[in-house]
Amino acid sequence: MQSILKPLLSMVLIAGSAGAAQAQSPFGKPEDAIKYRQSALFVMGQHFGRIGAVVKGKRPFDKAEVAKNAAIVEEMSKLPWDAFIAGTDKGKTQAKPNIWTEAAKFKSRHEKLEQETAKLAQVAKGGDLDAIKAQFGETGKACKACHDDFRKKD
Amino acid sequence: MQSILKPLLSMVLIAGSAGAAQAQSPFGKPEDAIKYRQSALFVMGQHFGRIGAVVKGKRPFDKAEVAKNAAIVEEMSKLPWDAFIAGTDKGKTQAKPNIWTEAAKFKSRHEKLEQETAKLAQVAKGGDLDAIKAQFGETGKACKACHDDFRKKD
Repeated sequence: MQSILKPLLSMVLIAGSAGAAQAQSPFGKPEDAIKYRQSALFVMGQHFGRIGAVVKGKRPFDKAEVAKNAAIVEEMSKLPWDAFIAGTDKGKTQAKPNIWTEAAKFKSRHEKLEQETAKLAQVAKGGDLDAIKAQFGETGKACKACHDDFRKKD
Repeated sequence: MQSILKPLLSMVLIAGSAGAAQAQSPFGKPEDAIKYRQSALFVMGQHFGRIGAVVKGKRPFDKAEVAKNAAIVEEMSKLPWDAFIAGTDKGKTQAKPNIWTEAAKFKSRHEKLEQETAKLAQVAKGGDLDAIKAQFGETGKACKACHDDFRKKD
């Protein structure tokens, strides 16, 4: 009997946890949630980096280009958070477990980032390079504050 | 002499091709360009899939949610194409070499996709489920047409 019960029990447990994950989120499987948030953050990082290159004088200042990059950064900064669903602290992720145990703090961190990216997009539209530099710095601080607390080092 | 010349020549060639890639794109290295386009396409696919679940009756129809997903699909569909830079047909990619040899065809394919995702976002705002279903189908065809011609099978 036991040799039959054990795999059956495993199947029930797996089906149960998959069901719970689906109820919480639109992700088909936990790996998709991890890949999704990493993808959104990577795209955001690339466009933020392009603004950084201008801020650091490594690329010429093109107002329209910076505004476009900042708009994408703002949009991307809204996406990753719903993907930090239960059970996605394992696998190919640098997410620290305290994302789930300090959920209110994590929320305040990413809300701060969203506020700063919205400001960056606004300032970038204005086209004042000094203001863009200042707001780029504030946005970078918001990235770092969250990474320091909630992301494992490479 | 030859033992010195060979590595020197390799360094010159590598430096030369890296310089060319940087001039063409804002990507620091080819791997970043590949990761960027895959990330953008993955995020797009996830949100497109959420609309698909509604279209197939697997998720309840929530107008605001579908409109939000369609808006993200539209925005994401603009991003991947600049990342198909020279030299990124190798490595962890399913990109077929004809992306670069049939560039005009590839452009027409992704422009078609962008047109269809823009229509999908528009239709989704309207909130007519039948119209959303129809435009979801048209958008899916545009995805498939490009994949059939330009993406290697898994």
